[in-house]
Amino acid sequence: MAEEFTVTPYEVSGEIDYQELITRFGTKEIDASMLERFSKFGEVHPMLRRQIIYSHRDMDWIMDEYEKGNKFVLYTGRGPSGPVHLGHLMPWAFTKYLQDLFDVKLYFQMTDDEKFMFYDQLTLEETKKWAYENALDVIAMGFKKGKTKIFLDTELIKTMYPIAVRAAKRITFSTVKAVFGFNNSYNIGSIFFTSVQAAPAFLESYYQGKNVPCLIPCGIDQDPHFRITRDIAEGIGYYKPALIHAKLMPSLSGSDKMSSSKEDTTIWTNDSPKAVKKKIGNAFTGGAVSVEEQRKSGGKPEICSVFQYNQYFFLPDDKKLEELYQKCKSGAILCGECKAALAERVIAFLTEHQERREKAKDQIEEFMLRD
Amino acid sequence: MAEEFTVTPYEVSGEIDYQELITRFGTKEIDASMLERFSKFGEVHPMLRRQIIYSHRDMDWIMDEYEKGNKFVLYTGRGPSGPVHLGHLMPWAFTKYLQDLFDVKLYFQMTDDEKFMFYDQLTLEETKKWAYENALDVIAMGFKKGKTKIFLDTELIKTMYPIAVRAAKRITFSTVKAVFGFNNSYNIGSIFFTSVQAAPAFLESYYQGKNVPCLIPCGIDQDPHFRITRDIAEGIGYYKPALIHAKLMPSLSGSDKMSSSKEDTTIWTNDSPKAVKKKIGNAFTGGAVSVEEQRKSGGKPEICSVFQYNQYFFLPDDKKLEELYQKCKSGAILCGECKAALAERVIAFLTEHQERREKAKDQIEEFMLRD
Repeated sequence: MAEEFTVTPYEVSGEIDYQELITRFGTKEIDASMLERFSKFGEVHPMLRRQIIYSHRDMDWIMDEYEKGNKFVLYTGRGPSGPVHLGHLMPWAFTKYLQDLFDVKLYFQMTDDEKFMFYDQLTLEETKKWAYENALDVIAMGFKKGKTKIFLDTELIKTMYPIAVRAAKRITFSTVKAVFGFNNSYNIGSIFFTSVQAAPAFLESYYQGKNVPCLIPCGIDQDPHFRITRDIAEGIGYYKPALIHAKLMPSLSGSDKMSSSKEDTTIWTNDSPKAVKKKIGNAFTGGAVSVEEQRKSGGKPEICSVFQYNQYFFLPDDKKLEELYQKCKSGAILCGECKAALAERVIAFLTEHQERREKAKDQIEEFMLRD
Repeated sequence: MAEEFTVTPYEVSGEIDYQELITRFGTKEIDASMLERFSKFGEVHPMLRRQIIYSHRDMDWIMDEYEKGNKFVLYTGRGPSGPVHLGHLMPWAFTKYLQDLFDVKLYFQMTDDEKFMFYDQLTLEETKKWAYENALDVIAMGFKKGKTKIFLDTELIKTMYPIAVRAAKRITFSTVKAVFGFNNSYNIGSIFFTSVQAAPAFLESYYQGKNVPCLIPCGIDQDPHFRITRDIAEGIGYYKPALIHAKLMPSLSGSDKMSSSKEDTTIWTNDSPKAVKKKIGNAFTGGAVSVEEQRKSGGKPEICSVFQYNQYFFLPDDKKLEELYQKCKSGAILCGECKAALAERVIAFLTEHQERREKAKDQIEEFMLRD
């Protein structure tokens, strides 16, 4: 029987059973026929092939509309409470893939209001500062200039507020209580917030003055927000946004979601090569108790955080991943060597990312959207 | 023992015991020494003398600061759900008195978002339309141009939202539940709203970049909002706003608050002379069952809505009001004559008001404040 686990935008705990989540949330699995459809538009992204992007709502409808010549827009976002880590970048990389594959516009929301209202110790000045810092990481991912609009809630609120209050009028406290697990001691800003997260799904429709489909690539933990958004969308005259869900990138400690609160098992985009080596060096693996034992019986890549990093992001070549898997299982490769190889790949990625992030400082105004 | 009654911004019911409200809400009565203080600044307004403006919070502090050269700003508002009636104008007339007496700035909030979120049948377009219609009535009251800023929530939200979320972070659902009587079936916009009503109390401080005292003249039914505002003010770095409270103008049916939902007993600012005559003709009075009986035993001005209209607004001359009282008590005046006299005064007032309201159409842009 499945262990108890919780997945909401505000709490992820326990050992997540992703198949069970599909049932719980009422989403659809990305199956072979969906992968087949993706293949008609171009390369099927490794995260799709590996079922890291594994669930959706109405992705087929998005493709139907696209094929009819009715382009969608992408919407994703980030809660700017601190620096960005690799767990954040993973769905952004997939979002970039979608932007490139379909050549579509992206709205990228920075929820500076949310992070302020949910985190006791953060000021609004701090979340705003982080929003601009994090925007550099977003730009560094290579999103298309001119087709990518990054905005802070507090800086686009005049446009979004009328949409948000239309949404809010149709959402009761009972609903947010049930969906997010809130209770009466939650502050009224956090209770209202889901309507501000709903608004960007309708921004393009608002700007164009006609209904435009919207696809939201996000971590499966964000689905509860958009379940509500979908519930109210048609009532306020818009299409339900479609969704495509990523599993949560695990931390280096093994099973749980990479979390901003766990310094040592989280790799930040501004980490130095030394820090990366140290963190990966200390990572949880599927290695055996001794070298001898591992040479004899092999390791367990299924439970290894280093293998997962390769699988999720750092070894996009399926053949190489399969080779690594076999070498681990057979005991041909030991954890030290495997960790060093991953560290090298992560450092190479981050070095480039950090360079692009520096360059992004001169481009940021071309990406920002304000009222 | 006092009858059961409820006074919140969202429900006024039962026979209001205004003295009891002072105890319930924890406000201060406007006593002789406060009237004495008012008299040092100029004429004491009839509504003050007659205890229609009867309660306050920190009005003495406002005067202390004023005397030290630290001017306050006024803040009041209106929920634009339909046309304006005389019950709305009464506190505005007192607000104008305060603006003139102290020569201070006024922020006038139109809560188009609130009325949309609280009234099922209203659209945001409609509340916006009413906000602009109602603004004409506000301007017609004669507020000082240049010192009076009228704004719609949806049109000043970019400025107010950061203030509102700072407030919201400190207000729990338990609080709004207790203060307004909300339950879990309330929509999350209405739950959030009190923080948007809090924000204008701090607008001048925000614009000036330093703390400026704020005085809120309002109906006592609005006090619950500002009790919350006062509770969170210092925590977000501002002065607690002071308040000065009006009793609620009764309807022509007698005891209850003049209400927008009661067509026949409510006088609108756009009513024709004919409509005014008819409504006042049908008003509840303290008259006796027959002319003979009234000539003999006199009427009861204490319970008469016509007398209350004179007392609240239409007979500012204390001597004349006292004369009318005595003539009624003695049976020297009958209800018909008294009603005709009131109708004449109301029609004269409205005729002028409607003219000023027409002229306001050319001035509205000079009064509106937007982000």
